[in-house]
Amino acid sequence: MKVKVVINGFGIIGKRVADAVKKQSDMELIGVVKAHQSYSANIANELGYPLYIASSTNKEDFLKAGSKIEGTLDDALQMADVVVDATPDKVGKANAEIYKKYKNLKAIWQGGEKADIAEVSFNAMANYEKALGKKYVRVVSCNTTALCRSIASIKEHYNIKEVNAVIVRRAADPSETTKGPINSLEPALHIPSHHGPDVRSVLPDVNIQTMAVKAPTTLMHIHSIIMKINENASAEEILKIFENAPRIRIFKENDKITGTAELIEYARDLGRARGDLMENAVWKEGLNVVDKTIYYYQAVHQESIVVPENIDAIHAMFEMFKDKNSSIKSTDNTLGISKN
Amino acid sequence: MKVKVVINGFGIIGKRVADAVKKQSDMELIGVVKAHQSYSANIANELGYPLYIASSTNKEDFLKAGSKIEGTLDDALQMADVVVDATPDKVGKANAEIYKKYKNLKAIWQGGEKADIAEVSFNAMANYEKALGKKYVRVVSCNTTALCRSIASIKEHYNIKEVNAVIVRRAADPSETTKGPINSLEPALHIPSHHGPDVRSVLPDVNIQTMAVKAPTTLMHIHSIIMKINENASAEEILKIFENAPRIRIFKENDKITGTAELIEYARDLGRARGDLMENAVWKEGLNVVDKTIYYYQAVHQESIVVPENIDAIHAMFEMFKDKNSSIKSTDNTLGISKN
Amino acid sequence: MKVKVVINGFGIIGKRVADAVKKQSDMELIGVVKAHQSYSANIANELGYPLYIASSTNKEDFLKAGSKIEGTLDDALQMADVVVDATPDKVGKANAEIYKKYKNLKAIWQGGEKADIAEVSFNAMANYEKALGKKYVRVVSCNTTALCRSIASIKEHYNIKEVNAVIVRRAADPSETTKGPINSLEPALHIPSHHGPDVRSVLPDVNIQTMAVKAPTTLMHIHSIIMKINENASAEEILKIFENAPRIRIFKENDKITGTAELIEYARDLGRARGDLMENAVWKEGLNVVDKTIYYYQAVHQESIVVPENIDAIHAMFEMFKDKNSSIKSTDNTLGISKN
Amino acid sequence: MKVKVVINGFGIIGKRVADAVKKQSDMELIGVVKAHQSYSANIANELGYPLYIASSTNKEDFLKAGSKIEGTLDDALQMADVVVDATPDKVGKANAEIYKKYKNLKAIWQGGEKADIAEVSFNAMANYEKALGKKYVRVVSCNTTALCRSIASIKEHYNIKEVNAVIVRRAADPSETTKGPINSLEPALHIPSHHGPDVRSVLPDVNIQTMAVKAPTTLMHIHSIIMKINENASAEEILKIFENAPRIRIFKENDKITGTAELIEYARDLGRARGDLMENAVWKEGLNVVDKTIYYYQAVHQESIVVPENIDAIHAMFEMFKDKNSSIKSTDNTLGISKN
Repeated sequence: MKVKVVINGFGIIGKRVADAVKKQSDMELIGVVKAHQSYSANIANELGYPLYIASSTNKEDFLKAGSKIEGTLDDALQMADVVVDATPDKVGKANAEIYKKYKNLKAIWQGGEKADIAEVSFNAMANYEKALGKKYVRVVSCNTTALCRSIASIKEHYNIKEVNAVIVRRAADPSETTKGPINSLEPALHIPSHHGPDVRSVLPDVNIQTMAVKAPTTLMHIHSIIMKINENASAEEILKIFENAPRIRIFKENDKITGTAELIEYARDLGRARGDLMENAVWKEGLNVVDKTIYYYQAVHQESIVVPENIDAIHAMFEMFKDKNSSIKSTDNTLGISKN
Repeated sequence: MKVKVVINGFGIIGKRVADAVKKQSDMELIGVVKAHQSYSANIANELGYPLYIASSTNKEDFLKAGSKIEGTLDDALQMADVVVDATPDKVGKANAEIYKKYKNLKAIWQGGEKADIAEVSFNAMANYEKALGKKYVRVVSCNTTALCRSIASIKEHYNIKEVNAVIVRRAADPSETTKGPINSLEPALHIPSHHGPDVRSVLPDVNIQTMAVKAPTTLMHIHSIIMKINENASAEEILKIFENAPRIRIFKENDKITGTAELIEYARDLGRARGDLMENAVWKEGLNVVDKTIYYYQAVHQESIVVPENIDAIHAMFEMFKDKNSSIKSTDNTLGISKN
Repeated sequence: MKVKVVINGFGIIGKRVADAVKKQSDMELIGVVKAHQSYSANIANELGYPLYIASSTNKEDFLKAGSKIEGTLDDALQMADVVVDATPDKVGKANAEIYKKYKNLKAIWQGGEKADIAEVSFNAMANYEKALGKKYVRVVSCNTTALCRSIASIKEHYNIKEVNAVIVRRAADPSETTKGPINSLEPALHIPSHHGPDVRSVLPDVNIQTMAVKAPTTLMHIHSIIMKINENASAEEILKIFENAPRIRIFKENDKITGTAELIEYARDLGRARGDLMENAVWKEGLNVVDKTIYYYQAVHQESIVVPENIDAIHAMFEMFKDKNSSIKSTDNTLGISKN
Repeated sequence: MKVKVVINGFGIIGKRVADAVKKQSDMELIGVVKAHQSYSANIANELGYPLYIASSTNKEDFLKAGSKIEGTLDDALQMADVVVDATPDKVGKANAEIYKKYKNLKAIWQGGEKADIAEVSFNAMANYEKALGKKYVRVVSCNTTALCRSIASIKEHYNIKEVNAVIVRRAADPSETTKGPINSLEPALHIPSHHGPDVRSVLPDVNIQTMAVKAPTTLMHIHSIIMKINENASAEEILKIFENAPRIRIFKENDKITGTAELIEYARDLGRARGDLMENAVWKEGLNVVDKTIYYYQAVHQESIVVPENIDAIHAMFEMFKDKNSSIKSTDNTLGISKN
C-alpha cells in the first residue's frame, strides 16, 4: 500500500517535492495545493499533478486562466496519509490548525517554521532515527541541512569541540525578481545568526555559532566552516569522510569549477532536472586542517537541497526504512543522486 | 542511412547541438571534439558521447583528468558527413581550412563567424530553401536568429517598410564567470550595430537598423522592435501570426512572467533540459500597433535558440526535407518544442 | 530679497535640491522636511540644514536618534515662498491639499506625480517660458527630462517627424537595496510606455513613442533614440548641436568610457558632489544619421539630472530670469556644470 | 621644507593618494605618472596635477588626446624625495629597480606587491614605529589594513589567542567593468587564504587564519571576524574600544544602514570626495562576545581605505611625526575623517 501524499504549496520547494514523490514507487501523489493563480497552476495540469486550491475564494482566477481544479485543500487532505507543507514562511503555522483536524494525518513542515511546530527537527544523515513513527516532523532549512550533513559526517569519526560558520547567502532565488539588493553586501546583524541554534535543533550537542552575509546573487549559498576537533586529523582523512558520505560531492580545482555558477552549469550538464544540485558541494583544494581545526567551504543549492530530506522524512514517519542508510540509499537512487 | 555528425567544440552551443543530434533517428553522433580539458570532457564520457580532442598536444591533460579519448579531430572528421563547428568566435575560420581537406565533408558554422565563411547564412523560418543541398552553411547568431524568426513571420503577411530594433544584451552566459560588467550598462558604439546587417545576410530585402546595450545579466537578451509596415494591421492580427508561427511562444501578463528570470523558471518547470527556452518569447501585452508601426518585445535565450536551426540546417544540406515546414515540424517534435 | 525655499522630502532628489538651493545667492533654504527617522536626519543637522518633520507623530523617533528638530512641515511652510515637493510618488498629491492652504505659497512637484497636479510640466531647455510667474509647476521625471533636453536641442534646428526611444532603466537607485531584480531583464508591458506621453506634456507637438526594459543595475539609465527628421543632416551637424547645448556632455571612444560605470567614475574624478552627473551623456561614436534618421544613445543619471531643472523652475516661477538661457547659465554656474 | 612626492600610477589608489598629498601642508606633489592614455590624464591636467608618463613610447597617444605632459617618470623621480608606487600588482616589483637607481629616493609600495619588496609592511595603527626613518615601505592591502586596524585596537587591551576571519570580497571596483562574475560566488581555494599571512607581516605574533569568498558586487568588502581572547570581555567593552579607535566608525541598526550600499550613500551624503569611506565600518548590533570569543563584522571600502596609511607612511619614513597617534591625528584632520 502506497503512502498518500499531499503537497501544500507549489513554489520553489513544493514543486520539487512533488516531482520527487512521483518518482517513489511506494508513494502516491494525491495532489498539489496552490493558494494563488499563476502559470505554475497550468504546469501542474500539464504534468498531470492533481491540482487543488487553498481556498475556494480564488477559484475564479484559476478557472479564468484555464486551470483544471480537483477541489480544495480540505478535499485533498481527506484522502492523504501525510501532508508536506511547503507554503511560505509562517503560513505553515496557521496551516497546522487545519492539519490537526485530521486525526490520522501526519504532517511535514519546512525550515521556515520554528522548531516547536513539530515533534522533531529532521536531517536524514544527522538524526533519521528520531523521526521514526513520528506524526509531526520539520525538515530544517537549506543552510541548516547542509551544515548538518557535513557536521554529522565528521562527527561520526571525530569529537567536535566547536564550529564557527560564516554563511554567504544568495539574496534571492532565481525567480524571486522583486527582491534585492542589486549591488550591496548585507551582514546579518544580531550575532550569532539564527542558523547556529537551528543546527542544534537537530544536533543538540554541537557547539556552533554562525554569522551570515547576504550577497547579490541567486544561485547558491557558500559556507565557510571552521571546525575545531579534539583529535589530530589530516585534510586527506576529512576528504575521505566526505567522499564516502552520501549527498556530499567533491569538486577538484582542475574541474575548472570556480564557483556556484559553474556548479549549476555542471548540474545542467549532468541532465539534472531544473539544473538542481541536491548535494553539498565541497572543493578538495578548499579543505584544509591546521592545528586540529578543519577549514572547508561548501556550496548549497537552496532550491533543491531539502528535497531528498523530505522523502526521507516520509520514510521515517511511516517506518518504511528503519535506518538512515537504507532510506538515503533508496531516496538517492530514485532521485539520481547516488554516488555509485 | 544516417547522416554522420561531428560536433567540433563542446561549449554552450556544441553540447546542446550534440544533445539534439542524439535525438534524431536519422542522424548519428560520431563524436564531440574538445580543445582544452575541463569537467565537461568527463560529462561527454558519462553521456556516452565519443570524445575527440582538437590536437594531440593536450592529450595528457585529458588523460590525467580521467577522460576517455577516441582520437583527434582528424580521426573524427574522416568518419563524418558533416561537421558542426561550435568553436569560439573566429576559431571557426581557421578550422575551415581543415574541413576543406575532406572532399565530401559538409560544414556548418555559427554566427560568430563572418557571413562569407559559407555559401549561405541560414535561418529555418526565413530562408530554409536557400540551404538545400549546400555544402557550407552558417547558422546565424542568437540575436539574428530571433530577429529573423519574428520578422519572417510577419513578412509572410505584410510588406515591411522598415525595422528598428534595440537589443538589450545579456553581458555573459551563466557559466562565463570572468566576464563583466557587474554594475554598468554599455552601449554598442558605432551605429548601426552589427546585428542589422547580419539580418540582411538572411533577409536581404529587409530594411533594418539596430542598436544594442549590454546589461549585467546572464539569462536572456530582450529585443525592443519597432517595425513599420505598409498596410494597416491590428495588434490582434500580429498576435495571431505569432501564435501560429513555430518557435515563437506567447506569454500573457496574468502568467505572472514579468521578465527573463521567470521565463527561464518556466522552462525549468516544463522539464526542459538545462532549462532551455529555444523559442522566441513574446508578451501579448507587450505587443501593440500604432499607425502602421508594430511594437513588440521578444526575449531570446542565447544559449539554446540556435539549436533547432542547426538541425534544420543539416536537414536542408542533405535534402532530408524539401520544405521548411516539414523540417521545422520534425525538429521541433524531436526537441519537445512543438506548439501542439 | 531671497526666495525662501522649503524642501519637503529629504531623499534621493530632496537632498540634492537642498544642496543646490544652498548654492544660490538669491535663495534661502528655510528647511528640509523628513517623514521618517533615518541617519539622513542627522546628516541634515551636520550640514546645518534646518530640519522639520512631516508630522509630530514620529517626533520621538527623531529625538531618540539624537536629531535636532525645528518644527513640523506646517511651521516651515508658514515661512516659505515655495515648497519643492520631493516626497515619494503619489505622496505629493496628498501634500497638494496642504500646500493650497497657504495662499501665497508656490509649489513644485516631481515627475512621479501626474501632469494634472500642476499648471505646467516643466523642462528648462524645452519650455522655460511656460512656467514664468506660475504658481504650481511639475518638474518632469529623470527620463523625460533627458529626452526633452536632447529633443528640444535638435528641434531648434530641424523639423522632427517622429521619435522612437527605448529606455533601458536602472532597476533601483544605489541606496534602494530592497528592490530587485538581481538577474533578470523586465520589459515594460503595455506599449507605448508612459515616458512618451510624458514628453508630450512638455513638448506637445513631438510625435514620440517609447518602450522600456528594466535591467539589474543601479547607476544610470541608457536611452536608445531613433529620431526621424524632415531635412537632411549629418552626424557632425547633430554632434555640433549637442556640443553647443547646455547640460549635454559629449564623450568620445578614446576617453575609455564604455558605459555608465565609467561615466560615474568620471563624475567622481571631476570632484562632483556625490559623484553626480547632471548632464545627458552622449557618445560621439554612438551617434549616427542614416536616411534622415538620427540614432543616438544618451546615459541619464537618475539621481541628479532633475536638480538643475528644479532651480530653473524656481527662477521661472518667481521671474528671476525672463529667458531660459540666462536661467540655465546661472544655475549651471552655481552647480559647477557649465560647459565653459 | 616640504617632502616632495611623486605618485607612480594614477588609478584607483594613485589618484586618491595624489588628492591626499595635495591636502598636506608639509608635502609637495611633484607629479603623477601614467603609463597609458585615458580620460584621467585630462583630469590630472584639469586638477593641476603635473602629469608625467611612464615611458615616452606612448607620448603620441597622450598628445593626440590633448593632454599636457611634463616629462617622463625619470624626470619626475629626479625631483622627488619619495615615490608612492600605485601601479598594478607586480608592476611595482619591476619599478623597484628603477627607484633604486636614485640614491636618496625613498619608495612606498602597495599591498599587491609581496612583503619582501620593502623593509617593513606597514599599518599606522599596528606598527607605525617600525617604519620610522625607513627607506622602503609597503602599505598593506585594503583587507589587511582593515584587519590590522581592528585587531591592533583590541590587542592593546586584550591578549588575542586566535583570529579566524572570512572575507566576502567585492569582485571588482566600480570602474573595473571587464571583470566578473555577474552571478556567482567564488571561494578562494587553498586555505588559509593569503590575507592571514599578510596580517602577520604587520602583526607577527597574531595567530590568524583567513578564508575568502568573492561576490558579484563592486562597493566594499565585508569581513566576518571570530576572535578568541584570553580574558573575559563584554560586547560593550569591545564596542568602546572601537569607538575610541581612530579610523573605525560605528553604525547602529536604527541608522537604517543595512549594508555596503547604504554605507557608501552615507559617505556621499557626508560630502566625502568620491563617496569614499576611509574608515572601517563596524555595526554595533553586529558585534557580540560569546565565551571569550569576539564576533564582529566590518565593511571595508577597498578604493580608499589605504589612503591615510600612505600619508602616515610618509610621515614615518621622514620622521615627521615620532608616534602613531600624532601622525594619525594629523592625517585624519587633513582628510576630514577625524572622529571629533
